[in-house]
Amino acid sequence: MRARHKPWADDYLKENTDIIEQTPTERKGMWKDVFQDNQPLQLEIGTGKGQFISGMAKQSPNKNFIGMEVVKSIIVSAVEKVKESGCENIRLINEDAEDLLDLFEPNEVETIYLNFSDPWPKNRHEKRRLTYKTFLEKYKKILKENGKLVLKTDNQGLFEYSLVSFSQFGCKLEEVTLDLHAVDDPANIMTEYEEKFSAKGQPIYRCVISFT
Amino acid sequence: MRARHKPWADDYLKENTDIIEQTPTERKGMWKDVFQDNQPLQLEIGTGKGQFISGMAKQSPNKNFIGMEVVKSIIVSAVEKVKESGCENIRLINEDAEDLLDLFEPNEVETIYLNFSDPWPKNRHEKRRLTYKTFLEKYKKILKENGKLVLKTDNQGLFEYSLVSFSQFGCKLEEVTLDLHAVDDPANIMTEYEEKFSAKGQPIYRCVISFT
Repeated sequence: MRARHKPWADDYLKENTDIIEQTPTERKGMWKDVFQDNQPLQLEIGTGKGQFISGMAKQSPNKNFIGMEVVKSIIVSAVEKVKESGCENIRLINEDAEDLLDLFEPNEVETIYLNFSDPWPKNRHEKRRLTYKTFLEKYKKILKENGKLVLKTDNQGLFEYSLVSFSQFGCKLEEVTLDLHAVDDPANIMTEYEEKFSAKGQPIYRCVISFT
Repeated sequence: MRARHKPWADDYLKENTDIIEQTPTERKGMWKDVFQDNQPLQLEIGTGKGQFISGMAKQSPNKNFIGMEVVKSIIVSAVEKVKESGCENIRLINEDAEDLLDLFEPNEVETIYLNFSDPWPKNRHEKRRLTYKTFLEKYKKILKENGKLVLKTDNQGLFEYSLVSFSQFGCKLEEVTLDLHAVDDPANIMTEYEEKFSAKGQPIYRCVISFT
């Protein structure tokens, strides 16, 4: 996601210590202590402006949510969204998915959400796709036994690539839908992208996979 | 595929002994002797009116093709199509996929094609879908090592179901496309259904899987 440069973003993130975890690597293995209640941990990688994670946290007060977003000028919008939600079961971290193993212990996460991730369509950028095998290795480590990864995208190429990548890695496909909005599902929390693309009539793809 | 009852079909099939194999279970393990050349065996299950298999046989003269179709009043059209093609690397069999293991020895088949198979959308008919696990077990047995299954369909529900069924069975997804006709591929031989549905703008789904 591109965004205008926001020179004030740095200071803003440092001020909002209740929402943005300032030293997240120190929380590795101890995320349960950050939240009021010891509840299963859900992680969204690439949380963008935070609509999905805020909606999910409201829908599932019995779970804890971490939204990870590497772009400072975008995560500031997510901070606003989390404030508005009033939910206390969300924290945000301004980190890169490359560093997942510095942030989470093995078995610490119950579910990983990838929503409308950058498709990196050029072959030479394959390694940057969040469903490339090096990322899958990290997900497998930090996920609990029976932990799940949930992927949503409108990008046909990324979805096709991801299904093959999951299979070649040895993941099991638990669910797949090739047109998420064909059936109205009030439990589906939409991201900003999802609202926009599905309003245009583009199909939204979704799958749930497990690592065995 | 539904078709008008054709009372003459029985006799017609018995007459065309060069195209319709009359006692196919006796050929089990010896299909190579049926064809002029000992070439890798390709099997289409549900060959319908025969457009796909005729096109494929013409495109790949270095392979042998068997088209299997259970409905007599439909396979008669395939016989006509095969005659027109003039290809000698095709045989048709009027048999049911349930009986695959009576028709082929283990490792006898290189590729299985499932084209626009009946989706059997009701849950209680799941076992009839050609990608239900009992069928996958049979495919795995008759396919060679590194043998492939290629599935094409316009039916979203069947495709979603099949991807999950393949994964749960332990198959590997080698390729997937969610809109086959988005790119013009002259190597793609279309079935009758495929021409019809893709002309309406419906996406055609395709995947290639291997059994490991």
